[in-house]
Amino acid sequence: MSYGLLRGKKGLITGVLDERSIAWHVARRAHEEGASLVLTNAPVALRLGQTAELAKRLSAPLFPADLTQISDIEKLYAQTLDHFGGPIDFLLHSVGMSPNIRKGKAYPELDYEFYWKTLDVSAVSLHKLLQIGRARGAFARGASIVALSYIAAQRVFPRYGDMSDAKALLESIARLFGYFLGRELGARVNIVSQSPTPTTAGTGIAGFQEMYDYANRMSPLGNASAEACADFIVALFSDLTRAITMQTIYHDGGFSMMGIAEDLLRNG
Amino acid sequence: MSYGLLRGKKGLITGVLDERSIAWHVARRAHEEGASLVLTNAPVALRLGQTAELAKRLSAPLFPADLTQISDIEKLYAQTLDHFGGPIDFLLHSVGMSPNIRKGKAYPELDYEFYWKTLDVSAVSLHKLLQIGRARGAFARGASIVALSYIAAQRVFPRYGDMSDAKALLESIARLFGYFLGRELGARVNIVSQSPTPTTAGTGIAGFQEMYDYANRMSPLGNASAEACADFIVALFSDLTRAITMQTIYHDGGFSMMGIAEDLLRNG
Amino acid sequence: MSYGLLRGKKGLITGVLDERSIAWHVARRAHEEGASLVLTNAPVALRLGQTAELAKRLSAPLFPADLTQISDIEKLYAQTLDHFGGPIDFLLHSVGMSPNIRKGKAYPELDYEFYWKTLDVSAVSLHKLLQIGRARGAFARGASIVALSYIAAQRVFPRYGDMSDAKALLESIARLFGYFLGRELGARVNIVSQSPTPTTAGTGIAGFQEMYDYANRMSPLGNASAEACADFIVALFSDLTRAITMQTIYHDGGFSMMGIAEDLLRNG
Amino acid sequence: MSYGLLRGKKGLITGVLDERSIAWHVARRAHEEGASLVLTNAPVALRLGQTAELAKRLSAPLFPADLTQISDIEKLYAQTLDHFGGPIDFLLHSVGMSPNIRKGKAYPELDYEFYWKTLDVSAVSLHKLLQIGRARGAFARGASIVALSYIAAQRVFPRYGDMSDAKALLESIARLFGYFLGRELGARVNIVSQSPTPTTAGTGIAGFQEMYDYANRMSPLGNASAEACADFIVALFSDLTRAITMQTIYHDGGFSMMGIAEDLLRNG
Repeated sequence: MSYGLLRGKKGLITGVLDERSIAWHVARRAHEEGASLVLTNAPVALRLGQTAELAKRLSAPLFPADLTQISDIEKLYAQTLDHFGGPIDFLLHSVGMSPNIRKGKAYPELDYEFYWKTLDVSAVSLHKLLQIGRARGAFARGASIVALSYIAAQRVFPRYGDMSDAKALLESIARLFGYFLGRELGARVNIVSQSPTPTTAGTGIAGFQEMYDYANRMSPLGNASAEACADFIVALFSDLTRAITMQTIYHDGGFSMMGIAEDLLRNG
Repeated sequence: MSYGLLRGKKGLITGVLDERSIAWHVARRAHEEGASLVLTNAPVALRLGQTAELAKRLSAPLFPADLTQISDIEKLYAQTLDHFGGPIDFLLHSVGMSPNIRKGKAYPELDYEFYWKTLDVSAVSLHKLLQIGRARGAFARGASIVALSYIAAQRVFPRYGDMSDAKALLESIARLFGYFLGRELGARVNIVSQSPTPTTAGTGIAGFQEMYDYANRMSPLGNASAEACADFIVALFSDLTRAITMQTIYHDGGFSMMGIAEDLLRNG
Repeated sequence: MSYGLLRGKKGLITGVLDERSIAWHVARRAHEEGASLVLTNAPVALRLGQTAELAKRLSAPLFPADLTQISDIEKLYAQTLDHFGGPIDFLLHSVGMSPNIRKGKAYPELDYEFYWKTLDVSAVSLHKLLQIGRARGAFARGASIVALSYIAAQRVFPRYGDMSDAKALLESIARLFGYFLGRELGARVNIVSQSPTPTTAGTGIAGFQEMYDYANRMSPLGNASAEACADFIVALFSDLTRAITMQTIYHDGGFSMMGIAEDLLRNG
Repeated sequence: MSYGLLRGKKGLITGVLDERSIAWHVARRAHEEGASLVLTNAPVALRLGQTAELAKRLSAPLFPADLTQISDIEKLYAQTLDHFGGPIDFLLHSVGMSPNIRKGKAYPELDYEFYWKTLDVSAVSLHKLLQIGRARGAFARGASIVALSYIAAQRVFPRYGDMSDAKALLESIARLFGYFLGRELGARVNIVSQSPTPTTAGTGIAGFQEMYDYANRMSPLGNASAEACADFIVALFSDLTRAITMQTIYHDGGFSMMGIAEDLLRNG
């Protein structure tokens, strides 16, 4: 279904890896809703995933960029603004990675070099995207920026490890930078805190399936799908949500508001 | 602008008093987006406001009902289901009133008869609408219910008085009833916590203008307008938000996330 | 152990029913810490419980009062102030009851007469205690007021039913009334949100044992005991916490901050 | 006044710079309450402040350590455990510093080298203290760990800049590490979110006086003093709070719960 919600809007989408990526669903839906897109991903991800092929499907240019590198981001904006001939109306931050989790290092036994990497890739990359974008005039008045998070930013999911800290930091960055972009440009920055989602990144976490099943049983509507998430993010990019900013919104089938689930008691 | 977001959907809108009502803006926008509507208001409000005329503009039947009265609600659903020939897809709760505030009774000097009235009209009416609606099969699968609130449910605004308690109760009702309707019907119940809005009800509060100005200067995007609020509620009624439930979402230009506003310091 | 934390302080304790009551543990510990006490309970509770005997153990007068009745509260304060020869330094609100839960009425099928009773006994009684106490000059400068709550005020525990709404209302009342008492008297009002506790009231809820066990496994420290709760409330009554007000503090072994418990996954 | 709350307990206090430091007030009060202490501070701070002299007053050894350096922390624990002949019962984290704020770099124009320094000193230092302490068996069963934070972790105070992000990260670390220490040792980790306090660090922030005055007028009890903060932290170190963990507790005279202050409207 398509409503034309993003007709005439231009957007930059990060983090499309393959067809399971939330970012891919967002890109696909934004395209259907009439937006013009630029896609970006890290050079290493481009080798592993299907980003190039997916970008082609949407007739969107693909500009590689490592979002921890200032120079890459500078170049990304230069290419994007040049392509569009003007500033962007929306931006999706959908990037996250923890070497500690990949290497099976539990939270009380972190490797601190890995930890800085987790924070840089998963959280500080948003600050860099916003700081450099702002300096370059890359955001149109009223622009809408969305970053993806997880409720481990607020509550303890032991196996989510140092990604929990990264998401807490990410949400703080969104909130505080949102103030400045709001004042200056009427732009908004929001966080979508999404259910566990079986993406390539997600399923790499040990015990993902258990976390997924647990949340699914706990949530009155079940886990929110990647497709539903993309629909909501399209609404956040659209003019329908122009007065919402600096919020963390739970897109999770109600999980965040549950204290106990009868189903878990009964069948647990 | 219209996107056809609510094409084929049927909804019940409470609380339309006059052209300044948020409920009116919601009704107007839902109509534009393709919904069929029923409007309702209390008999006393019907005498004072313009509900009948506004209902006519949308070709929507107007069924009077005092939402504190079980029998009135029973009749309202009977008429509504009869009119639509089936259950409703969305419902807006936009009702609130405090005799204590009207009579200038400060929060530490409440009249308790008035207090029960405040709670009944402003909060328990939602429970009654949901309980009776559920018993009658009035909600379609996946139905979306929205109630309007204010941040005084979480923080202290001294002059908002016992309406603060009513909004806290309202949000609790939405959350808990949302669980049951989610499990049973895949339906969702959400709260929109809106900026101070110069409606007929709002401007009746002593010191409203000061509260409005304060929030306006504190909010990075300024106060959210009634029009913007209606747009967001339309998004909540639509399928774009089908996985969000039991949430309080701040539609407030960022006010809720501010700790201090530079503008207030400078010009205060 | 005793530290003399409440030496010279005078306090009013509501809700002592029997030796399992949290209020009883608070009274006992406050007494040990050097406070002088007055106990009160509803006439009906006095017939069923051991309040009179327990009051005797602490050499504390026991003044019966139904805390939903203005005239009873007026009399209670008159007796208390007369007994102490001056205002009180602390007050414990520990009263709650839901006829709907007692009669097995699920949340979407409430009896509204019962509902008003739930709210009146469990929440509005705090407002009445504060409003009448304030009018009578019953609170000393810097007085400390504590009310007991449960996390169902914030999240969904389906079987806790309408007590969830009552606790949300109670917390709102504490917050807002706390503002006025703070400004006027430097007094503070706080909420202690306590783990499920096997009191006579608690164990009356259907499925209490399951809720207790679930929380116990979810909480890193296990469920907080009534004894630990009493210790913390003594700290809140003392001068050690003189700058904390209008807060809900979770005394729950960490339950409120958990998103998932490994133990539940493993053994669930 | 002294109650003997910490009799027989051993603790490690970081961040004592001079007599205005909150950490100093905590050390002084913990000593009065019967604790044995070790103090630590960074070598650079030792040159600038009065730590050595203050340590002497409490007959406490002072072990220099840069809390961003693993080897320094290893040595600090070795010396501390050796001094006490066993593990510690409590730990205060009271360390924070932002080169960006010192150099006047606004939040949307950060120097990223400085940013990593801010996060390392102000937040990750807690993780390092806990990870290394845990590995060395430095924490006694039931140990109590407290870290100091500020409400900028949750809401926007533009001039607090990247310290806001550091505090959000700090609180996430406390919460998640608290889970592991709770499960393993019955230990607890809590955050005290304190009013603006005129310490040497605090007053270094541009516009500190305005922030202080604003909060003071907004808070029903006025800003919480460093002395009151120390009293509360002593309570958190004591056995009175043994069931509280992973919480952020606002010690702020009620500021966090205010939406608007009448005083600001009137005199603003």
